Parts: sequence; structure tokens; C-alpha cells
Amino acid sequence: MKPIDFWFSIGSTYTYLTVMRLRDYSDEMGVSFNWRPFNVRTIMIEQKNIPFAEKPVKAAYMWRDIERRAGMYGVPIVVPAPYPLEHLALANQVALVGTREGWGPDYVAETYRRWFQAGQPSGSGPNLSESLKCVGQDSDRVIELARSDEFELALIQNTETAKELGVFGAPTFVVDGEVFWGDDRLEDAVSWARNGDVR
Amino acid sequence: MKPIDFWFSIGSTYTYLTVMRLRDYSDEMGVSFNWRPFNVRTIMIEQKNIPFAEKPVKAAYMWRDIERRAGMYGVPIVVPAPYPLEHLALANQVALVGTREGWGPDYVAETYRRWFQAGQPSGSGPNLSESLKCVGQDSDRVIELARSDEFELALIQNTETAKELGVFGAPTFVVDGEVFWGDDRLEDAVSWARNGDVR
Repeated sequence: MKPIDFWFSIGSTYTYLTVMRLRDYSDEMGVSFNWRPFNVRTIMIEQKNIPFAEKPVKAAYMWRDIERRAGMYGVPIVVPAPYPLEHLALANQVALVGTREGWGPDYVAETYRRWFQAGQPSGSGPNLSESLKCVGQDSDRVIELARSDEFELALIQNTETAKELGVFGAPTFVVDGEVFWGDDRLEDAVSWARNGDVR
Repeated sequence: MKPIDFWFSIGSTYTYLTVMRLRDYSDEMGVSFNWRPFNVRTIMIEQKNIPFAEKPVKAAYMWRDIERRAGMYGVPIVVPAPYPLEHLALANQVALVGTREGWGPDYVAETYRRWFQAGQPSGSGPNLSESLKCVGQDSDRVIELARSDEFELALIQNTETAKELGVFGAPTFVVDGEVFWGDDRLEDAVSWARNGDVR
């Protein structure tokens, strides 16, 4: 079975659930995932898709739903986490460096853990330096590289690619042109990759 | 185990999946549901929660997602169904008559079947008369009753009650003050009713 494209954006709330379970899930299910960071905010603003700002009832529900489902997965959580993120692009440019160098998924889990368990926003100085240290990286080197034109452009290009595929939110799984949006559609995506339908 | 409140609004797209599976699911799982119609549009407009209008990418995804999941449940579907509904309030006032008289769930399934399989909008004349006939009701009597001040007010009151509970969309399940939004949260709601957590 070929790998499933996992489009994620550090900054998305429900993506916490996915990044905390996906590495174990991948091993247990024998399915591999291409971790592909993009800038979900760019797409959502362009498509006038603003789910939580000025929607306090829906936002409160979102946190409660994530909290309950984190419990289901056995993942600790303190809600609400700081939201929205100030440095979304940088957080994802670092992820892009990581996916090229092989430590991407571990960094993404580390940065989300700090954001959703310790209230330390992803993309902020302390979160970046501690998360990178945890995955064995020199934070000065990585942040300089992540801020370079090359990686700024690479994130924009990934975002364009995602948009062309029909991605409009995060997390999203793409299998043979089929788009599955949301942590709660991971199982549907795997079913599609295996069987060509959802069962 | 006490019944779970099932807040639904004829007019919601994902509610098709729930109303087509809930009666069998209830029997199989030994869980009962209080079918409670409300006007989801009133709440969504008030809360500036407009998920699909002017959002063509997200709307296209919604239809595809529902189509795939209908396949998972073995429920026929033709997408996109006519949307949005013109006569949402009347469709739900008829449901309210039905829930009081005992034929509510059967009418809701019949009206959705016509809407999502034959492209005949719920609340329109032909859909109402045929759906009511199918469930053994005199459509003239029921429609006159549904249009009365009593049932117009009853739908408004149900909508207020739903809003006070934190309901912001449909379908929604409410268990001991916990709100579960979406067809894909039915299993979470049942888990909560049984165990007091999601597992």
C-alpha cells in the first residue's frame, strides 16, 4: 500500500489529536504517511472559512470535543490552548526543514505537546528552541534555515499544492485524489487506501 | 440507561446519515433517543456560523464526504441534494407534530429519503404529502396543524431550549449536559451515556 499524504498545519487545533497518535497508529496499522506541512490560514482566509473567531459557542465546543477525544486516545491536554498562533508560518517552515531532514514528525509532536500541555505557543521562541533541542537539533541553525527564502517559498508552494488538491482545512489526508478532512477521518482515509471505499 | 436527546433539523445535510441509521442503531445498541426537532438555521445565522454558502470547496467536500459515508452505512444517496431548503421551518413543524403523535422518526426518514434520493426538497408540497401518506397520515390535517400558532411557537421554543443547551448545529446529541455535534459523534455520545467518558 502506498503512503497516505498527511497535510498538516501547526496552528490547527484538531491536528493535535492526529500528531499525537499518528506515529503509533502508523506502526500498528502498517500504513505509512507523508507528513506535508502547509499554511492552512492562507487557504482559510482566502476561502472565507473562519470557523471559530467571533463564534464563542462553537469555539467552546471545539475545545471540549478535543479534550474528550484526547481522553479517548490517552493523550494529556490542557484546554483551551493559546489560540490562534502568532507565528504559524515559522512553526510550519521549521516543520518543513524537519520533514526534509528526517526529524519532522518528532518535532511536530514536541511542539504540539508544549502548546497543548504547557500552554507554550508553537512558533514562539521558547517552544521552538526547546522542541528542537528535544529532537536533537541546533535551534539557531534550524531557525535560520527555516526563515530563509528557500523555506518561506517552500511553505507557500506546499500550500498551493494542497489547495490544488482540494485541501481547505487541517488535518487532511489525501489518497488517490480523495480528500479526507479531520482527525476523525483518518480511519476513512486508511479504509480508502486499502479498499477503495469507506467501510 | 436513560434516553439520549437527539436534536435534529430537517435542512441539515449530515443529518441524513443519522436519520437513516438511527432507528436500527437504537435497536441494535439498546439505546433510546428522544427525537427533538429545532430550527438550526435560526441559531446558525444568529451565531454567524455559515458553513457552506460562498464556500464552494468546503461545500463540494461536504457532499463527497456524505456520499462516502452513506456508502459505509449502506444508504443510497444522490448528491448534491437541493440545498438550502426553502421551507425548513414547516418541514420541522411537521416533525414536531409527528414526535407528539408517535410517527415522527418515520416521517423524518421518509422526507429525507425523498430529499436525498429523489431530489425532492423536504418541506415542499409533494415531499410533504407523499411522506405523510407513507407514514399513514392525512397530509391536509397534519399540515394545517403544523402551520398553526401552536406548532410554530413550539418549534421556536425547542430552538431556544437547544440554544440554551449549547447546541449550535445539527445533528447534535446531548447527554447529561454534554454536547456531541455531528453524525460522527453518535458513538461518542453513546459511550458517554454508558461510561461517562469517550472510549
